[in-house]
Amino acid sequence: VNASSKSPRLLKARVATALVIGVVFGGLAFATDPSGTLTGTVKDLPLAKPGEPTLAELGALLGQGRIAINIIWTMIAAFLVMFMQAGFALAETGFTRAKNAGHTMVMNFLIYGIGILGFLMVGFAFQMGGSGGSSALGGGANLSQMLGVTIGDQFFGLLGFSGFGLSGNAYDVPTFALFFFHLVFMDTALTIPTGAMAERWKLSAFVVYGFVASMLIYPVFASWAWGGGWLSTLGKNFGLGHGYVDFAGSGVVHLTGGVMALMGVIVLGPRIGKYGRDGSVRSIPGHNQPMAMLGVFILAFGWFGFNAGSTLAGTDLRLVTVAVSAMVTSAAAMLSAALFSTALLGKLDLGHTANGLLAGLVATTASGAFIGAPASVLLGAIAGILYVSAAIFIEHKLKLDDPVSAIAVHGVSGLWGVLSVGILADGTYGNGLNGVTGGVTGLLYGGYGQFLAQVIGIVANLAWVGLSSYAMFRAIDATIGMRVKPHQEIEGLDYHQIATPAYSYPALEGDAGVNEIGRELVKR
Amino acid sequence: VNASSKSPRLLKARVATALVIGVVFGGLAFATDPSGTLTGTVKDLPLAKPGEPTLAELGALLGQGRIAINIIWTMIAAFLVMFMQAGFALAETGFTRAKNAGHTMVMNFLIYGIGILGFLMVGFAFQMGGSGGSSALGGGANLSQMLGVTIGDQFFGLLGFSGFGLSGNAYDVPTFALFFFHLVFMDTALTIPTGAMAERWKLSAFVVYGFVASMLIYPVFASWAWGGGWLSTLGKNFGLGHGYVDFAGSGVVHLTGGVMALMGVIVLGPRIGKYGRDGSVRSIPGHNQPMAMLGVFILAFGWFGFNAGSTLAGTDLRLVTVAVSAMVTSAAAMLSAALFSTALLGKLDLGHTANGLLAGLVATTASGAFIGAPASVLLGAIAGILYVSAAIFIEHKLKLDDPVSAIAVHGVSGLWGVLSVGILADGTYGNGLNGVTGGVTGLLYGGYGQFLAQVIGIVANLAWVGLSSYAMFRAIDATIGMRVKPHQEIEGLDYHQIATPAYSYPALEGDAGVNEIGRELVKR
Amino acid sequence: VNASSKSPRLLKARVATALVIGVVFGGLAFATDPSGTLTGTVKDLPLAKPGEPTLAELGALLGQGRIAINIIWTMIAAFLVMFMQAGFALAETGFTRAKNAGHTMVMNFLIYGIGILGFLMVGFAFQMGGSGGSSALGGGANLSQMLGVTIGDQFFGLLGFSGFGLSGNAYDVPTFALFFFHLVFMDTALTIPTGAMAERWKLSAFVVYGFVASMLIYPVFASWAWGGGWLSTLGKNFGLGHGYVDFAGSGVVHLTGGVMALMGVIVLGPRIGKYGRDGSVRSIPGHNQPMAMLGVFILAFGWFGFNAGSTLAGTDLRLVTVAVSAMVTSAAAMLSAALFSTALLGKLDLGHTANGLLAGLVATTASGAFIGAPASVLLGAIAGILYVSAAIFIEHKLKLDDPVSAIAVHGVSGLWGVLSVGILADGTYGNGLNGVTGGVTGLLYGGYGQFLAQVIGIVANLAWVGLSSYAMFRAIDATIGMRVKPHQEIEGLDYHQIATPAYSYPALEGDAGVNEIGRELVKR
Repeated sequence: VNASSKSPRLLKARVATALVIGVVFGGLAFATDPSGTLTGTVKDLPLAKPGEPTLAELGALLGQGRIAINIIWTMIAAFLVMFMQAGFALAETGFTRAKNAGHTMVMNFLIYGIGILGFLMVGFAFQMGGSGGSSALGGGANLSQMLGVTIGDQFFGLLGFSGFGLSGNAYDVPTFALFFFHLVFMDTALTIPTGAMAERWKLSAFVVYGFVASMLIYPVFASWAWGGGWLSTLGKNFGLGHGYVDFAGSGVVHLTGGVMALMGVIVLGPRIGKYGRDGSVRSIPGHNQPMAMLGVFILAFGWFGFNAGSTLAGTDLRLVTVAVSAMVTSAAAMLSAALFSTALLGKLDLGHTANGLLAGLVATTASGAFIGAPASVLLGAIAGILYVSAAIFIEHKLKLDDPVSAIAVHGVSGLWGVLSVGILADGTYGNGLNGVTGGVTGLLYGGYGQFLAQVIGIVANLAWVGLSSYAMFRAIDATIGMRVKPHQEIEGLDYHQIATPAYSYPALEGDAGVNEIGRELVKR
Repeated sequence: VNASSKSPRLLKARVATALVIGVVFGGLAFATDPSGTLTGTVKDLPLAKPGEPTLAELGALLGQGRIAINIIWTMIAAFLVMFMQAGFALAETGFTRAKNAGHTMVMNFLIYGIGILGFLMVGFAFQMGGSGGSSALGGGANLSQMLGVTIGDQFFGLLGFSGFGLSGNAYDVPTFALFFFHLVFMDTALTIPTGAMAERWKLSAFVVYGFVASMLIYPVFASWAWGGGWLSTLGKNFGLGHGYVDFAGSGVVHLTGGVMALMGVIVLGPRIGKYGRDGSVRSIPGHNQPMAMLGVFILAFGWFGFNAGSTLAGTDLRLVTVAVSAMVTSAAAMLSAALFSTALLGKLDLGHTANGLLAGLVATTASGAFIGAPASVLLGAIAGILYVSAAIFIEHKLKLDDPVSAIAVHGVSGLWGVLSVGILADGTYGNGLNGVTGGVTGLLYGGYGQFLAQVIGIVANLAWVGLSSYAMFRAIDATIGMRVKPHQEIEGLDYHQIATPAYSYPALEGDAGVNEIGRELVKR
Repeated sequence: VNASSKSPRLLKARVATALVIGVVFGGLAFATDPSGTLTGTVKDLPLAKPGEPTLAELGALLGQGRIAINIIWTMIAAFLVMFMQAGFALAETGFTRAKNAGHTMVMNFLIYGIGILGFLMVGFAFQMGGSGGSSALGGGANLSQMLGVTIGDQFFGLLGFSGFGLSGNAYDVPTFALFFFHLVFMDTALTIPTGAMAERWKLSAFVVYGFVASMLIYPVFASWAWGGGWLSTLGKNFGLGHGYVDFAGSGVVHLTGGVMALMGVIVLGPRIGKYGRDGSVRSIPGHNQPMAMLGVFILAFGWFGFNAGSTLAGTDLRLVTVAVSAMVTSAAAMLSAALFSTALLGKLDLGHTANGLLAGLVATTASGAFIGAPASVLLGAIAGILYVSAAIFIEHKLKLDDPVSAIAVHGVSGLWGVLSVGILADGTYGNGLNGVTGGVTGLLYGGYGQFLAQVIGIVANLAWVGLSSYAMFRAIDATIGMRVKPHQEIEGLDYHQIATPAYSYPALEGDAGVNEIGRELVKR
C-alpha cells in the first residue's frame, strides 16, 4: 500500500537469493496472502476514522458499491455486444462472394464508426434525452427533455431532447454508461442491412444511410420503447399490461434492422444473376462458410452481454435466467432449423443451421427475461422453423435477394420475439417495469392487454422504420444512386471500390514480380 | 433518476445551443459527475427510510451484494467458457482437410445445441441434483435428491436426481446459475471427440453420441466428483485428503473428453490413407493452420473463465492465483512442447506449439488453484513434453489416428493434471473443500492420502467413461453405423453430408455461371 | 445451501413426474426464486452470530467486497487484454504473405509464452518491485525495493527490485493480480515488432529479443512511469503537473513497442523486392485482409479492457468515461484515416481504415481518462490523419519497410497520445495521482508543467528504448544473425523454418497422394 523504500543500492547478493527462491518450490514460509482470505478488510474503506466505520459511512459506501457492481456488469456486457460487430462482419463476408469480401468487411467497419459519431452527436439525445437516465447506474437525471404531444390529458412522448454530444451536464458517469450501452445496441441494428444489401450497394450511399439511421431512424423508435416514449407508457396510461415490453430489443434492434434491410433490398433489387428471366432462382454460395460460422459463434457469445446485460444491473439477479433462456432458445432454434431444413433439402445446410441459432437468439431477446426453461425450448423450436420458412418464402416467393437471410433472421424472428412476450411471459418478472406493478404476463397466463401492447409496438415499428427507411433509400437512389454499375458488380466491388484486394493467394505460388527482383538480388 | 419533464415543445433554439456545446470543448461548468466520485450514495439503497439505513438493512443488502458479485463473476466466466466452443470449432476445422471443413465445423455447432437440450432435460439433474446447490451463488438447496448405495455405514452417492428440465422448484436463480456454469463445462468435454473422430464420423451417429454423452456419460462422473458423489466424499469418509479434488475439471472435463475420444477412435479406425499396408505412417496436414491457431488463442482466452471462474465466487480472491497459474503453466508447456518437438523434428511445428499451450492449460485445470508460480512452471514444462511424447506414441506406436491430437492434449494431459494435485498442491488453499479442514496438500508436502484419492479418481474415470463410451460407440456401430462409406470419405464428407460447400473460391476467378447471365444482362 | 439428502433409491415414479414437469410450462407453483429478488440475504454473510451483524463485521465485509469488485474488474479486463494477442496474430498474419503465414503466426504465439516467463522471472520485479503494490487491489506492499540514485535531496527511482519469480512473500493475491495485469500489457508491447519485422526475421533472433525485451527493455521504462520511478515523481518533486502521466500506456506500451519496431526495421532492412534499385517503392499486399480486419476488431474489443481496466478498480467509476473516450476516439480516427487516405489514393483502403481505428485507440490510451466526448473526437480525428501521413512518410521517404505499419500505428500515434495528455486533459480526473492533488490538466486548461512532463517522458522513452533495443538488435545481428538467408526469404520462411505448411488447400482438389492409397483401399 505504502510507497517504496528507496535506499539506493545497485546490484546485491539479494538478486541471487531472489532468483533461487523463484525457481525452487514453496517458499511458503514467506507467503503473504496466497489464499486471498486476508486481503480486503475494513482498512480498505475510505473512512473518516480509519478502521472505525459509522452506520452512515457504511450506508454510503454500500450504495457506491452497488452502483459499481451495476456499472461494471453493464460495461462488460456492452463490451461483449461491441464484439458482435466482428461476428456480423465475418458472417456477412463469409456468406457472400470473395470478389466482394473487402467491400462487405469494410462496411461492417465503417458502420461502427459512423454509428458512433451519429449517435454521439444526435441519436442518443433523441433516444434517451427524455428518459430520466437509469437509477440502477446511479442517475443520469439530466436526461430530462422529452418532446411530444398531449392528446386529451395524455402525453405521448415522441422524441428525447437532451444530451447532445454528451457535453454540458451530460458529461456525467451514469449518462456516459447509458450512452455506451445503447450505442452498441444501435450499432447492432445498423449492421443488419449491410448483409442483406451486400454485393451491390454503393459505398457512398451506404455512408449516408449510416448517418441517417444512427441519428434518426433507430433513435426515434428506441425513444418510444426505451426512452420513456409513448409505447412504454401504454400500460401506465391505457392499462395495456406493462405497455410495449422489449427487454433487450427483438423489436427495437432486430426488427428495426430487419425492416431497414427489407426496404433496402426492395429499393436495390436482386444481385445480377440471382433470378433468371424465366423466374428461376439461382443459389449463390458464400465463399467461406467456416468464416461465417465463426462469426455466428462470436454473435452467440456477445449475445449473452446483449440479453443478460440488459438488466443494466448486476444486482438484478434475474440476469441469470435471461442468460439461460438465451442459451436454451438458441439451441432449440438451431436444432429445429437444422432438422426442418434437412427435411426440405435432403442434406444438412450450414447456413440454415447457423442462422437457426441466430433466429433463436433474436427471438429470446424480447421475451427471454420473462420465461423459464421449458418455454424457452418452445420459443426456440418455433423460431427455427419460422426462420427457415421465411428465408425460403422471401427468396423463392417474394423474389427478394437477401444474401445472408438477414430479413428472415432479424426481421421475422424479431417480430416473433416481440409477440412472444405477449404470449409466453409467465408473470415472474417485471414488477415496476414502465411504472406498472406486478410481473409481465402473456396470453397463456391471461395477459390480453400485454399481447395488444406488443401488437401495437410491432405495427409502430413497421410503420415508422418501414416508411422512414424506404423514403431514405428512395431519396438516396434519386440523388447519388444506391447501386454500383452492373459491370462493377460483375467484376467485383472490391476491384472498383477498394484500393487493395481482399485476398492475395497467388503469393503461395511464388510472388511473381516481387520474386523476380528477389532472385536477381540473390544472384549477385 | 426521476421521470422526464414533458412540456411538449417541438424545435427550439435549444437544439443549436446543444449542438454547439457538443462540438466545442469543455462545457465543464455544466458537467454533472464526470469523475464518478459523486455517483452512488446511500440514496441508491432500497431502504425503509430513505437515507437512514439500519444495521439489519445494511446486513441484508451486503449479503445480496456479495451474491451479486459472485453471480456476475460466475456468469461472465461461463460466457468465456461458452466462447471456447468457437475455439474448438476453429482448431478442429483448421487442423483437418478442406474437403471436410463444413462437416467438422457443423459438428461443433450441433454438439453445442444437442448438449444444451440433453443437459437441460436430464444431465444436470443427474450431475447436480444431489449437490445441495452452491451457497456462494445464494442457494439452490432444492437440488437435494441423491441416489446411491450404503455399504457398511457409508453412503456412496452415485447419481443426483432433481432439477429435471429446470422446472418446478428448480425455476430458481441460484439453480439456473449453477446450471449455466456446469452446462458450458459439459459442452467442452463433448466437443473434444469431434476433433479426434473428424473426417470419417457419420453425422447421425454423432448426434446419438451427443445426446447419450450429455445426458448420461458426462453427468455420472461429474456427479461423483462435483455433485456430492462418492469421489468427493473419500476425504470426509475415508481420510483420503480432501477426497478426489479436481478444481476446474482436468479429469471431469478433459480426461472424460479424451477417454471418449480414445474409444471413438478405436471403434472408428483410422482415416483412409493414414497408415500404409506396410505399417508406414502418413502425415495428413490440416488445411488452414492459422485458423486452427486462432482457435487455440480463443481457447486460451476462454480458459481464464474456465479455471478462475471455477471459484464460483468473485469474493473468493484465490481466483487471482488460479488465473496466474493458468497463464504461467500454459507458457511453460508451449515452450517445452515447441523445444522438444523441434529437437525431434528438426523444425518448429505449428501444431505442437499450439497444442503444447493447450496441454498446459489442461494440466493446470485441476491443480492450478493449489499451487504458486514456480510450481506452475514445472507443471507446464512436464505437460508440454508429456503431450508431445504421447501424441507421437499414439500416432506411431498405437497407430490410433487422431487428426488433432485430442487424446494426447485432453486425455494424457488431463490425467497428468489430476495427478499433479496429489503431488504439487502446497496446502495454501482448499480449507473446507469437500467438508475437510485445512489446505489441499500433495505428495511433496506430505499429502499421501490426497495422492491416493487422485489415483482412485483417475481409475474411476477410465472405468466409467471408458466402458460406457466404448459400449455406446459399439452399439451405434452395430445399429446405424459409425462411419461414412469409403467413397464418401475420399470425396469428402461435405460433398455427401452437407448441402453447400464450405468454400467457394472459384468466385475469385469470375463466377462462371452467374457472370454468364450477368454479362448478358449488361449487354442489354 | 445444505448438503444433499441421501436416501438411496434407484428409479422411481419421481422420474416420470420430473420429466413431465420439465416439458410442460409453468410449474410456477413450485418455483423457488425465479426473479432473483429473494436470493442473497444477511444469511449469506459469514458472521459470528448468523443473521446478527455488528458494525465492525459489516465494515470488514464491505472492505472485502470492495476489493473483490476491484479484483474481478481488473482480472476480467486483463483477460480481454490477453485476447488482444489473437488480434495481433491475425492482423500481422493477414497483412503479410501466405508463404510466411505460419512464421508470422507462431511468433505471436511464442512471444506470449516467452514474455510470460521472462516477466515472471525478472521483468515484473524490475517494473513493479518498488511500487508498493496497489491499494485498490488490496495491497502488495511487499513490493518495496527500489534501486535508484539520489541527486541533491531528490531520489530518482530507476528500477524496482522485489517480487522475482512471484515467490517468497510475493506469493500473495494482490501481488499476483498486479502481475497478471501488467504482464498482458508487457506482452502487448512485445508483439508490436513482430509485425513490423515480419517476413524476414530469423526465429532464433526473435526468441532472444523476446527474453531481453520482457526482462529488461520494457520493465525499465514501465518502472519509471508506473512503478514509482523518476518519471512518476516529476510532479511531486519538481512541480511538473502530476509528473509523467500515461493512463493505460500510449507511451509505456505502444510507443515502446513502436520504437523497438523502428530499431528492428532499421537493423533488419527492407524485405527483398520492397524497394527497387531505382528507388521505386513496391506495394506488397497482405494475403488475407479479412483475417487482418478480424484481428483489428478483436484488438478493439480487448482495448476496452486495456483502457477502462487501467483504473485497476471497479469502484473507480471513471472507467465509464474511459471506455466512451476509447470508442469515440477510435471511430473518429477510423473515419479520418479512411477519408484522408481515400483522398490520397482515390479508393478506400482496407488497411488504412482498419489501422486508423487502431491509431485512435493507441492515442486515447494515455489521455482517454482525462477528457470528455468532444475532445475525444478531436483526439481521434488528428490521430487518423497523423497515422496515414506517418505510414506514407515512413514507407516512401524514410524507406523503412514495415509490412503492417506498426511504427506509424503504435509509435507515432503513441507519441501523440502521450502528448495529448499535456494538451487536452480537462482537470476532471486524477486527483491524488502520483501523489499530486487536483485533476490532471493540459495546456488548453493551463497545465504547462504537465505538458513538459509529457515531453520529458517521450524523450526518456526514445532514449532508453531506442538505444537499448538498437544495441540489442545490433548485438544479435553480430552474433547469431537477425535475418534469414535471401533464398529462404524468397521461398518463404514457412518452408525453411516451420515443419508443416500453414495452408494445404490442394486438399480441395482431391488429396493427391493420400487419395491414391484411399482408392486402392476402396477397391479391395
